Amino acid sequence: MKKVSEAEKLIYENCTTTKVKLLNVKDAYGYVLAEAIFSKIDTPPFDQSAMDGYAFSFSDWDKKSILTITSEIQAGSFSSNKLVQNEAVRIYTGAALPLSADTVVIQENVIVSNNSISIKDEQLIQGKNVRLKGSQSKKGECILDVGHLLSPASISFIAGTGIDKIKVFSNPTISIIVTGKELVQPGNEITEGKIYESNSFGLIAALNQLNISPISVNIVDDIEVDIIHAISKEIHTDILIITGGVSVGDYDFVVSALEKCGVKKVFHKVKQKPGKPFYFGKMDTTLVFALPGNPAAVLTCFYRYIVDAISTFTKKKYFEALNLPLANSYIKKSSLTFILKGKTDLKEVEILEKQESYLMNSFAFANCIIELEEEKIDFNKGDFVKVRMII
Amino acid sequence: MKKVSEAEKLIYENCTTTKVKLLNVKDAYGYVLAEAIFSKIDTPPFDQSAMDGYAFSFSDWDKKSILTITSEIQAGSFSSNKLVQNEAVRIYTGAALPLSADTVVIQENVIVSNNSISIKDEQLIQGKNVRLKGSQSKKGECILDVGHLLSPASISFIAGTGIDKIKVFSNPTISIIVTGKELVQPGNEITEGKIYESNSFGLIAALNQLNISPISVNIVDDIEVDIIHAISKEIHTDILIITGGVSVGDYDFVVSALEKCGVKKVFHKVKQKPGKPFYFGKMDTTLVFALPGNPAAVLTCFYRYIVDAISTFTKKKYFEALNLPLANSYIKKSSLTFILKGKTDLKEVEILEKQESYLMNSFAFANCIIELEEEKIDFNKGDFVKVRMII
Repeated sequence: MKKVSEAEKLIYENCTTTKVKLLNVKDAYGYVLAEAIFSKIDTPPFDQSAMDGYAFSFSDWDKKSILTITSEIQAGSFSSNKLVQNEAVRIYTGAALPLSADTVVIQENVIVSNNSISIKDEQLIQGKNVRLKGSQSKKGECILDVGHLLSPASISFIAGTGIDKIKVFSNPTISIIVTGKELVQPGNEITEGKIYESNSFGLIAALNQLNISPISVNIVDDIEVDIIHAISKEIHTDILIITGGVSVGDYDFVVSALEKCGVKKVFHKVKQKPGKPFYFGKMDTTLVFALPGNPAAVLTCFYRYIVDAISTFTKKKYFEALNLPLANSYIKKSSLTFILKGKTDLKEVEILEKQESYLMNSFAFANCIIELEEEKIDFNKGDFVKVRMII
Repeated sequence: MKKVSEAEKLIYENCTTTKVKLLNVKDAYGYVLAEAIFSKIDTPPFDQSAMDGYAFSFSDWDKKSILTITSEIQAGSFSSNKLVQNEAVRIYTGAALPLSADTVVIQENVIVSNNSISIKDEQLIQGKNVRLKGSQSKKGECILDVGHLLSPASISFIAGTGIDKIKVFSNPTISIIVTGKELVQPGNEITEGKIYESNSFGLIAALNQLNISPISVNIVDDIEVDIIHAISKEIHTDILIITGGVSVGDYDFVVSALEKCGVKKVFHKVKQKPGKPFYFGKMDTTLVFALPGNPAAVLTCFYRYIVDAISTFTKKKYFEALNLPLANSYIKKSSLTFILKGKTDLKEVEILEKQESYLMNSFAFANCIIELEEEKIDFNKGDFVKVRMII
């Protein structure tokens, strides 16, 4: 039986795959860059007016003459006429300055008459109201590096330099197999001895939380051939998550079925509560996590281990890890790490009631999980403990 | 011209719509409950074994006799035979206890011979290893209330009580219109006077960040009839976001086009930088936000105002609002509220360089926006300022 730290290490050592995909910049929110991004052009691509006004050559102007308006340049238009002394163009925000112009006087600071302007702006200086070509990025300049987490602002930035497709680290493909003869899908009538299936719901939602959709969800009876069939069908994904049937009871077929499918066991059983029968194996590059069937154990193992495995694919850090003082005391048994549902205001952390692995009513109000170390038994208010946010 | 606080208040007062939709529980991650949830059944629906072992009636047992194994109950099965004195059943984790049984001894603590067991467990007490019927939820009990934010754990909890469909507050439907004669889509060649369009990219990503996809994105030239046509097509959504052409220049047609479409102006222009020409209007229940076209102004207005408007639909709080001390000093002009790109470690907040509204290269590294109040000019290191997280 592995310690929690050993299980964590073994999973990490076996997470050796990453995949890169080419994505439309439009769809790239929340991914991490797998390539450095180089500006395709100078941005702005030209000296650009920052205001509605009049553009002219500051050095050619004697600070008193009126300027003749020779033409008008709207944003998106372009004039190839070079201005000469005492000429100006009517210009709008975002428009390209004509050749030799370097300064814009805003429309509020001129007097217009007979197609000419006289400037009334004592503070006007050369270059005023002009965004210089390349002042945001130079053509070929590295603007964002590998590993950059793509925010809406970074996506807007990349698009603005002309790039429409980028390489990002892919999400892993993930399949789910839920096993259990006792399971009935919610919405249906329940018969004696049966319970409602909830693990596929919890896992789909937990993957959605990471912006991942599972590619397949299978609900399978506790029959070994059926489980073997489901595993064979799903073993091509990057990560296979199985729930239920992972203990050593007479009807627990998952571990034997995995073996018969050729999955190589890395470990089975961890000194933890909940989730002691937790299994981790690998076949080729596919990671297989088989979790005990109790709903709270499933989500606890997901947040404690599987999130980190997914992180090695996506290069994203999903949840904060903190050290916080306990708000209440707790007595646990020795030789098992306890992973408990908690609620924190980021100043201290409270161990919630109803921690049994079949209960979800406290988990529904938890915002973190708390790890109480293996050997220690008495935990007192104020003791610092490992906390992992889950929201 | 409105103050920032007035603009905020006017938007809030005009956000009067919410819609509720019925959703499969499976798809409900991240939504807020619009109805209280009542357990459809007792959960567990029966007294349930928590372990693999043997179930029997504790009070009928004299603490020394061997017990005859009468049958076996697998999870998902059910026995209607009532146990009599000195009888036990083989039982597995999750299975229903037979009538009159109330205690489970785990398989490790018995000696099995000739279809009977002798119990070797000094600490065994009545009710041990049994999860009582209804101990998680009683049929008809309110398990989650209106306003509950659905986490993976709450979804698992709801599914486990048999419910497959729930009412949640809907996301608003949102359309985007990006205007500008100068805009070329990224990936294409750019010609003189043109720039790459990035606002639709930034807005789509910002909506994705809130788990919303816009239902329509339109890129339109600076031609009034085209803008009128686009507005008419999109005015049926809950929120219409328009970028560009909202100032008072000769080619700014958005405000006049909105008026011609029947949109009622609530305000136009806010004493802020960036985003001074920010417009807000309403037609029937549709909220119209028209933003100046500079990319940084667009995302700043999105995070400062539109996120809060979306929040009134979904009842979700998207980003933390904090008060933090400045890490650097800053001098601004009076009579405008400055909304600046910042970076914070949650202890202090740094005002980033390159704050001009056409620049996205600092925004790409920001994790918050900082609000510097209207009248104050000098801000010193250590001064507390309003910070809104954007990541």
